Amino acid sequence: MNTYDIYVGGSFQKTSEILQVANPYTGRAFAETYLAGENELEAAIDRAQSVENTMKSLSSFRRYEILFHVSKELILKKDYLAGVLAQEAGKPMVYAAAEIDRSAQTFLIAAEESKRLPKEYISLDWSSAGVNREGMVKYFPLGLVAGISPFNFPMNLAAHKIAPAIAAGCPIILKPASATPLSTLELARIVDETPLPKGALSIIPMNRTTGEKLVTDERFKLLTFTGSPKVGWQMKREAGKKKVVLELGGNAGVIVTRSADIDFAVKRCLIGGFAYSGQVCIHAQRIFVEKPVFDDFTEKFVEGAKTLKSGDPLHPETQISVMIDEPNARRVESWVTEAVQRGAAILCGGNRKGPFFEPTVLTNTEASMKVNCLEIFGPVVTVEPYTDFEEAIRLVNDTPFGLQAGVFTNRMNDINMAFDRLEVGGVIINDVPTFRVDHMPYGGIKDSGLGREGVKYAIYDMMEPKILVQPSS
Amino acid sequence: MNTYDIYVGGSFQKTSEILQVANPYTGRAFAETYLAGENELEAAIDRAQSVENTMKSLSSFRRYEILFHVSKELILKKDYLAGVLAQEAGKPMVYAAAEIDRSAQTFLIAAEESKRLPKEYISLDWSSAGVNREGMVKYFPLGLVAGISPFNFPMNLAAHKIAPAIAAGCPIILKPASATPLSTLELARIVDETPLPKGALSIIPMNRTTGEKLVTDERFKLLTFTGSPKVGWQMKREAGKKKVVLELGGNAGVIVTRSADIDFAVKRCLIGGFAYSGQVCIHAQRIFVEKPVFDDFTEKFVEGAKTLKSGDPLHPETQISVMIDEPNARRVESWVTEAVQRGAAILCGGNRKGPFFEPTVLTNTEASMKVNCLEIFGPVVTVEPYTDFEEAIRLVNDTPFGLQAGVFTNRMNDINMAFDRLEVGGVIINDVPTFRVDHMPYGGIKDSGLGREGVKYAIYDMMEPKILVQPSS
Amino acid sequence: MNTYDIYVGGSFQKTSEILQVANPYTGRAFAETYLAGENELEAAIDRAQSVENTMKSLSSFRRYEILFHVSKELILKKDYLAGVLAQEAGKPMVYAAAEIDRSAQTFLIAAEESKRLPKEYISLDWSSAGVNREGMVKYFPLGLVAGISPFNFPMNLAAHKIAPAIAAGCPIILKPASATPLSTLELARIVDETPLPKGALSIIPMNRTTGEKLVTDERFKLLTFTGSPKVGWQMKREAGKKKVVLELGGNAGVIVTRSADIDFAVKRCLIGGFAYSGQVCIHAQRIFVEKPVFDDFTEKFVEGAKTLKSGDPLHPETQISVMIDEPNARRVESWVTEAVQRGAAILCGGNRKGPFFEPTVLTNTEASMKVNCLEIFGPVVTVEPYTDFEEAIRLVNDTPFGLQAGVFTNRMNDINMAFDRLEVGGVIINDVPTFRVDHMPYGGIKDSGLGREGVKYAIYDMMEPKILVQPSS
Amino acid sequence: MNTYDIYVGGSFQKTSEILQVANPYTGRAFAETYLAGENELEAAIDRAQSVENTMKSLSSFRRYEILFHVSKELILKKDYLAGVLAQEAGKPMVYAAAEIDRSAQTFLIAAEESKRLPKEYISLDWSSAGVNREGMVKYFPLGLVAGISPFNFPMNLAAHKIAPAIAAGCPIILKPASATPLSTLELARIVDETPLPKGALSIIPMNRTTGEKLVTDERFKLLTFTGSPKVGWQMKREAGKKKVVLELGGNAGVIVTRSADIDFAVKRCLIGGFAYSGQVCIHAQRIFVEKPVFDDFTEKFVEGAKTLKSGDPLHPETQISVMIDEPNARRVESWVTEAVQRGAAILCGGNRKGPFFEPTVLTNTEASMKVNCLEIFGPVVTVEPYTDFEEAIRLVNDTPFGLQAGVFTNRMNDINMAFDRLEVGGVIINDVPTFRVDHMPYGGIKDSGLGREGVKYAIYDMMEPKILVQPSS
Repeated sequence: MNTYDIYVGGSFQKTSEILQVANPYTGRAFAETYLAGENELEAAIDRAQSVENTMKSLSSFRRYEILFHVSKELILKKDYLAGVLAQEAGKPMVYAAAEIDRSAQTFLIAAEESKRLPKEYISLDWSSAGVNREGMVKYFPLGLVAGISPFNFPMNLAAHKIAPAIAAGCPIILKPASATPLSTLELARIVDETPLPKGALSIIPMNRTTGEKLVTDERFKLLTFTGSPKVGWQMKREAGKKKVVLELGGNAGVIVTRSADIDFAVKRCLIGGFAYSGQVCIHAQRIFVEKPVFDDFTEKFVEGAKTLKSGDPLHPETQISVMIDEPNARRVESWVTEAVQRGAAILCGGNRKGPFFEPTVLTNTEASMKVNCLEIFGPVVTVEPYTDFEEAIRLVNDTPFGLQAGVFTNRMNDINMAFDRLEVGGVIINDVPTFRVDHMPYGGIKDSGLGREGVKYAIYDMMEPKILVQPSS
Repeated sequence: MNTYDIYVGGSFQKTSEILQVANPYTGRAFAETYLAGENELEAAIDRAQSVENTMKSLSSFRRYEILFHVSKELILKKDYLAGVLAQEAGKPMVYAAAEIDRSAQTFLIAAEESKRLPKEYISLDWSSAGVNREGMVKYFPLGLVAGISPFNFPMNLAAHKIAPAIAAGCPIILKPASATPLSTLELARIVDETPLPKGALSIIPMNRTTGEKLVTDERFKLLTFTGSPKVGWQMKREAGKKKVVLELGGNAGVIVTRSADIDFAVKRCLIGGFAYSGQVCIHAQRIFVEKPVFDDFTEKFVEGAKTLKSGDPLHPETQISVMIDEPNARRVESWVTEAVQRGAAILCGGNRKGPFFEPTVLTNTEASMKVNCLEIFGPVVTVEPYTDFEEAIRLVNDTPFGLQAGVFTNRMNDINMAFDRLEVGGVIINDVPTFRVDHMPYGGIKDSGLGREGVKYAIYDMMEPKILVQPSS
Repeated sequence: MNTYDIYVGGSFQKTSEILQVANPYTGRAFAETYLAGENELEAAIDRAQSVENTMKSLSSFRRYEILFHVSKELILKKDYLAGVLAQEAGKPMVYAAAEIDRSAQTFLIAAEESKRLPKEYISLDWSSAGVNREGMVKYFPLGLVAGISPFNFPMNLAAHKIAPAIAAGCPIILKPASATPLSTLELARIVDETPLPKGALSIIPMNRTTGEKLVTDERFKLLTFTGSPKVGWQMKREAGKKKVVLELGGNAGVIVTRSADIDFAVKRCLIGGFAYSGQVCIHAQRIFVEKPVFDDFTEKFVEGAKTLKSGDPLHPETQISVMIDEPNARRVESWVTEAVQRGAAILCGGNRKGPFFEPTVLTNTEASMKVNCLEIFGPVVTVEPYTDFEEAIRLVNDTPFGLQAGVFTNRMNDINMAFDRLEVGGVIINDVPTFRVDHMPYGGIKDSGLGREGVKYAIYDMMEPKILVQPSS
Repeated sequence: MNTYDIYVGGSFQKTSEILQVANPYTGRAFAETYLAGENELEAAIDRAQSVENTMKSLSSFRRYEILFHVSKELILKKDYLAGVLAQEAGKPMVYAAAEIDRSAQTFLIAAEESKRLPKEYISLDWSSAGVNREGMVKYFPLGLVAGISPFNFPMNLAAHKIAPAIAAGCPIILKPASATPLSTLELARIVDETPLPKGALSIIPMNRTTGEKLVTDERFKLLTFTGSPKVGWQMKREAGKKKVVLELGGNAGVIVTRSADIDFAVKRCLIGGFAYSGQVCIHAQRIFVEKPVFDDFTEKFVEGAKTLKSGDPLHPETQISVMIDEPNARRVESWVTEAVQRGAAILCGGNRKGPFFEPTVLTNTEASMKVNCLEIFGPVVTVEPYTDFEEAIRLVNDTPFGLQAGVFTNRMNDINMAFDRLEVGGVIINDVPTFRVDHMPYGGIKDSGLGREGVKYAIYDMMEPKILVQPSS
């Protein structure tokens, strides 16, 4: 069994508390690592604070060099890393490999952005008080960052915290999900090869008590958390003076109008609805289809869902595999049961086998059913007809969440109305809400979060403006 | 008869050469002013150069104060100024008043932009050569500007040269069109009330020989010309080392698709086609209508053209009046005759009476007829059907000019294709090519010009970047 | 006695709870207004929410028109308004008039910025996932804003919340300080003349219980608070899901190097140290002078402090008057006493008479004395010598606060080091930390606050990005 | 002898006209290539035009891939390529290797910038005319570019035209200097390995008659020329309608104040004055030293100049070698002779041996001597004392040229005055005017040129704005 040391303040270490990592598909532990206790966390914080000034004054080309190296190595080791990720997360290889590609892209973007950190000029002589003076606003690193990342994209969602921190010049301590710590520890090994000051990055699995300190300790200047809404909003309350960025979940809606290319919409909705068993924050959970094309869409969509290839995540042709664990599959099962009991119809799927849940399409659902009003984080999609576009927008908005939404249409008016009125962080035209590239601003409104990731945006959140008022030339 | 002194180096002066200004509608001179000779131009240049440094170091709030005052006064004196403009240009009062409003807007925009002149930071440490250095790029005024403005928007097209020059900190010498010098001289009177350094603005009508110096004299650092293509391109050749901005003409095309609101398209095309007798650079000269709606559009458009109210420009309800002079009306007449002889059909209009030419709609025309391939600068519009959108784009592009184009459509794909492929400086969706607001970048490609106006863009053209490389903080 | 109705949801109203407003100099009430209870607050919230969509879709030129009108009227009524402000705040007329000027400037800047709200393009095809797609990020108003403003700049610090809200398209409910509600109610009267939708602005004094709801009620999407650190940080904890901007206090430091123009430094420090009796967030509280020029600086500074003209704030020549109330003057007195008991020397001042406290200069102080380590918000300045520039920076930084700092120097190296290392939101070269123009980013780090004001920055805080991913042209 | 085919429209070809390439140090031809005639140029133009649309629609990630590949290969083949460059240009290996590094950097910057091509939003509703409309300004490639590059940086100055053209999406035909065509042909071989559409790049040495067409042919939309002032300005006159960017020469000045670190200034001036025998556009030709430190500076500078290691450019320790050819060395000799005859004193050097000219320092010179008033493009530097900083600025400005200037100082006031008043494109604080990194805006004013290079700036010059006015969301 492989053993992974944790990465504390720039050195790989063991602790007294072993953390076994299981393959969700086989249910068997295949590797082990360690949980950090308070001592390790304190050591990480100490080392991190000791390199704050070094990090702040790293030249652009050194930051580029560090971040570019990571990007390059991720590509070179893609097959190996995808295997590790597939095993710990139960994620089909094709998606695991795509995640490594995206992680490499995330580091590449950060590399480039590290050369483009902002500094802005402001003319100050708009009134006599400012005559012969000018302002320069430079952005300085905030200081120590605490990052908490989830199991579903164990490498790339960690990369979205680590890479910006390096680019911004902030040391960071990252707590990966306990179920999937290995891909980030692989990442730690790569980062450790670079000239990044030791201590600027720690990657340490923690139990919840130790992890609490990431939230409450005032030595952290920013908490960036990706995870569930309930946990996230509680953290905001306990965060003290520090800034907080929350990337929480949603129950993303899709609108398919009759002006859309239905076959294309079906193809994309199958990916948005079932990729990684729907364990994706921007999983396409609720699809609203304009009445005249509802039957056509639904028939093709159900047909597609039925033919998804299920199996071992390590098999290259697997399209859908197990969920992260059986309790989650049971939860999904119970939500589907609730829906059916309240009148919903199962168009396909609906069955569970251990941690595996079939790709499931429901209709005749209501907004108040759990399959609609909560984040299902499972391979379940509801499909409902609508009459006019304004109604479709109301339906998508009728939820406390607001992450992203997809709209399949070719009418300019629809696009403008959707962008203006959909209460989300991102409106995706002619694609599923699941669309994300790593440099775009990404994040939710309403209960779905606070702030934006997307490399440049995360970098800015890790910096603080300071103005210099000086005599003007 | 009113007499207007010319504005030479900050003082109002007479010269030995009287210039009479006639009302194109009555054909009678109603005011007189003067032509500058070489002496006046030399005086203007001397004074302008003597205030270059003062202009360069004017504070933002002083520039704002000067430009805002002009904007405010133009509004306060709108009725009076519109009357002067209507008389000298034969422009109907409603359009003359709108031009005063736009001139005020042009000065207001320049006032605001004068507080937002750019200065940009560049991190330089992308390689070891730049470590611990940073760059600041500041934009400095180029120096003395030569402006030449046309008769058709005598105040606002002059404002588009004067206001940016003041905002940029450049002295400017402006030559207005000889037919319409009065509105700019009214403007000079307003500017003269402000704390603008005397000499920073001269407004002097000139004969062609004197005017030549604006093109060839190396003391001018920029020539900004609005006028005819032939003259403009010749100026570029003779301009020596100075920068040249050319705002020339066109024969703008419009596409009306069946997805459009036809009544709205008709209404806008009547304005685009006949406002100020088509003496507008972005006059809607060629309209291409998708076949299924061609008859509907054409019928309504011709009906509208027939009911335009013609008469004295000073009458508040006049919609169309005389052209700038009879020779131009005769030129238009001869082009229509050529078209008819080669097979074109007149749907309405076609007659001339002195300097007045009727609103005229032609069809069955060919691209090679003068009414299509040259800039008609008269109240003549050709209307032709097309089959598919790609063809419509080819038709609009089939000309050496490329200023603006209008597209009436609601399909996203049309918009994208139009923006990508129309060879123009501006694509206007759901409006005529005649659309312009004064802060948007405006100018043509191909034979229609070089560079852009639109206040901020003109300001930038009047400035030169200089980089400061300095130790970084 | 003048009576001011409060401004609830677009109508001026009385309530059952009268609030008397006293002139701090005479100690006598000269006007009265009302405290809002829960009913009025609910009415204001209802009306505000009902105009959210109208506000969101106000055109730029309408926003400009509203904000510009306010700016213009403030200037026209400057003398009158300065009188109201001087009376309620005990602020000398010269400073009260300057505050009206600045408030007008704040609204003018907001007017201009309302035409420049950002929308940003992002190319998305950095990897194959984004091919033929592009992103547009538009900023939408957050929704209802809660503002709480302090007594010391009763009009301009309220303007810094109201004007950005109007520019951003957010309704706002503002709670002014109970001691100084009149100038904002005067502002309400001016705003009420404009076409701003009724309900978009409420200005209502409240008792603390009612005011609590501004912090805790989830219908508010942003809380923007200017006031004391203790209160502010507690609010952050109780704010729930809403965003929070905190503009808190400080104990700003000044460094005077021997390369400085000492007479100029003295002149500016007298203003920074004693204007409005030091009741200014960026009051120059701690001055560090390089040893070779310490005696020269101190002698001149004390001489200047002694000759400040004290008296009735309504007298045009008064430079220093009473503090906001006697308890505050007593607090200042006790802090000075503590300093003296621990060894500090009084160079001038030190005495209290009712609410008046003399301009006071102390030396031989220590960092741990209250006059140094807390925000004194009174006319007391400490002056201490330092040996080298690094030491001076350490001294300025040795405090939990970090708002602004001033540095008088002509050496490039000092400037770079100061900008790099001073732990503040703003470094002012060759002026006091008290320097502020209203469009610059303004705000503190460490315990001095969270976020930035300065019109554009406040506007951005009131907006939320949303990305549109669409087919690219 | 090595033979290099020329790169015509994407294929490597021979022509009937052989061009022999000599090593300036040995005087012997060591390789041969070909001159293109009209046929080859026509073929190149045809192929280039045929891929214009393909180039325009290349995705960002494809442009990145192409440009990044070139950057990477340049680094991998650095030693080999530096050898080729050293041989054809007589450039010492250390500088030749540095040029390859910089060329790689130029392509890397272009790769990154190709993902950041601008598209800008403009709110249009500043007046009622623009209500419910918004503008998007996108930059489209201009079309075919003609590039002409000089002998002195044969690879990097070609890279500054080729890399931006690829990033912008413009096909380009480059004419390298006849003396040094080989490094660009090596570059062509690398570019040919990428997926760049064949025909998008041609690299063809030409005789002057054929080369003329690059200037006059209207199928080229931009001419970008780096070379001598006289030739450049003549080209502007003959360029017809196309845009012209001119990077011409200068006689750069340096100011050394007494506040400077003299030893550092000497060290940098030796590089600025003698690197590549002064055959550098921003060669430090005129050094002005504040009187109190003049003797100290001059003594050390002359001492340094005397100890520069001369010899074979291929020898790794050579610091200075031959000039590009003997006629140029004779020209430099004659200018030095003129200066001496008119009273100048030779402090070191002054002798010629074939194409080698000694590092030469002159004093007692006058502004009107050729060594000062013309661009010497040879290893000659004049050193003169000055009294005060304003005088130093006047001395630097007293020339028709204005490329860059260096100022060694630590006083903020000097920096501000220098930036404000030096009539150049770049002011370099605490370094020689010879400072350039490849992403900074670079170019001269006055007779030194028109427009700026520096990758992003060159890209923008190769693009044309087009505005889309559309209904706003």
